[in-house]
Amino acid sequence: MKEKYIFQLEMQVRDYECDIQGIVNNSVYQNYLEHTRHEFIKTAGLDFAKLHEEGIDPVVYRVEIDYKLPLKSGDKFISKLNYETNGHVKINFLQDIYRKKDDKLIVRAKVIAVILKNGKPIKSNLFINAFDTLTHKNI
Amino acid sequence: MKEKYIFQLEMQVRDYECDIQGIVNNSVYQNYLEHTRHEFIKTAGLDFAKLHEEGIDPVVYRVEIDYKLPLKSGDKFISKLNYETNGHVKINFLQDIYRKKDDKLIVRAKVIAVILKNGKPIKSNLFINAFDTLTHKNI
Amino acid sequence: MKEKYIFQLEMQVRDYECDIQGIVNNSVYQNYLEHTRHEFIKTAGLDFAKLHEEGIDPVVYRVEIDYKLPLKSGDKFISKLNYETNGHVKINFLQDIYRKKDDKLIVRAKVIAVILKNGKPIKSNLFINAFDTLTHKNI
Amino acid sequence: MKEKYIFQLEMQVRDYECDIQGIVNNSVYQNYLEHTRHEFIKTAGLDFAKLHEEGIDPVVYRVEIDYKLPLKSGDKFISKLNYETNGHVKINFLQDIYRKKDDKLIVRAKVIAVILKNGKPIKSNLFINAFDTLTHKNI
Repeated sequence: MKEKYIFQLEMQVRDYECDIQGIVNNSVYQNYLEHTRHEFIKTAGLDFAKLHEEGIDPVVYRVEIDYKLPLKSGDKFISKLNYETNGHVKINFLQDIYRKKDDKLIVRAKVIAVILKNGKPIKSNLFINAFDTLTHKNI
Repeated sequence: MKEKYIFQLEMQVRDYECDIQGIVNNSVYQNYLEHTRHEFIKTAGLDFAKLHEEGIDPVVYRVEIDYKLPLKSGDKFISKLNYETNGHVKINFLQDIYRKKDDKLIVRAKVIAVILKNGKPIKSNLFINAFDTLTHKNI
Repeated sequence: MKEKYIFQLEMQVRDYECDIQGIVNNSVYQNYLEHTRHEFIKTAGLDFAKLHEEGIDPVVYRVEIDYKLPLKSGDKFISKLNYETNGHVKINFLQDIYRKKDDKLIVRAKVIAVILKNGKPIKSNLFINAFDTLTHKNI
Repeated sequence: MKEKYIFQLEMQVRDYECDIQGIVNNSVYQNYLEHTRHEFIKTAGLDFAKLHEEGIDPVVYRVEIDYKLPLKSGDKFISKLNYETNGHVKINFLQDIYRKKDDKLIVRAKVIAVILKNGKPIKSNLFINAFDTLTHKNI
């Protein structure tokens, strides 16, 4: 059986990320999710800069984010990630954020990415093969 | 027949909104979409501060964003909005962003909002009635 | 006599730029100031991308910002700019932000920039000559 | 002899904080500096929310930032802080950021703060007394 998450990162809300309502602004969760994906991709041994030199760039095709509960100033949270293939060219990143103190689900997101080579989609194998090396590690 | 959009706002990309790839960062579109919604809501005559004093706060429940083409430094764009009811408590904001110079679709978004009163969802009439006063104006 | 300002830009506070205190976060003024400088530089006919290809990049060396009054949600403001040479390699951008409704001074800033060519400072003439073409226009 | 720094925080650059030039945007350092100050103030036992209820808010009066070297994607850095009194009402936060891998100075900042009670400056004792409890700990 595949593990529910294969990567996670602990972070903490910074005051400048909160808005007038005293809670983290909706757009900031995309920052958290992006940072988590990039750290995951680097952990899988992929080098953005080197890939970019070869004309290869992963891009976000679509995001779906469900906002369950708001994070507040100072809250610690765990950003967790898994992925699944979606046809031959798309990768679905399944990303959930949990509040650390009570393990409550804060945000549930699906981020669909495509890998472009010189602007055109290529098969996702390049990334999936690197990711698979991490899937044996349960967190 | 209902018009396709009932509100729009022209904006311009600022350099600090662009990332390493030289294009607007994905999370920044949520800033553009939020600013457009808030300006729309104010144009409809609703007063966030006054509503907040009465314990009423609109919150985002879910976003779906399709990224079609990237905006670059200096690009002007038109952020367009419509809405539809979704049951008795949800409002779907249908928000599209077009590049000004060639009218190409950049981002297509559905932002589902709920109105909370003292933390609990209430019927969306309060907002919908205000919005309806704007729907006769074709843009 | 030289005019007090030679360039200005009108902008409006967006809700996501405000923090828990309901006022624009201190760091956001640097975004406003940068956007104003970049628009000024472009208006002077200088092309960042083309300069960058020639190995030329302007960078910020030091900022001094006095916070006089806070901007709030929805406030319109005018961001005004002048400059002065500072030795042969530095340019001082003198940038003030005024609230539109009552012309009150919000922020007074001095931003000291240096032009790098392949990482080393060069004489500021390149930029100053372009700027001088604008100084005859009083705003 | 007083220690050079009395508080520090390790952080890491996130990709979304970098701009077109591939380096951390100038305004983002103010985010880093603010987060460091707020963590310091909390560590000193002061409670922003509780103080706010009593009408007490610290605000930034002036910032001076010298940009020495740029941070890049993925760089780890140490944000260090000290303070000094400046007359009876102002506090100077002396904040330096060092790149972790080689201990190079990245940013040197002086952030002058004032404590407002119901909008009017009060003596800085309230904060200084709390800070002093930390000054015996060398980092």
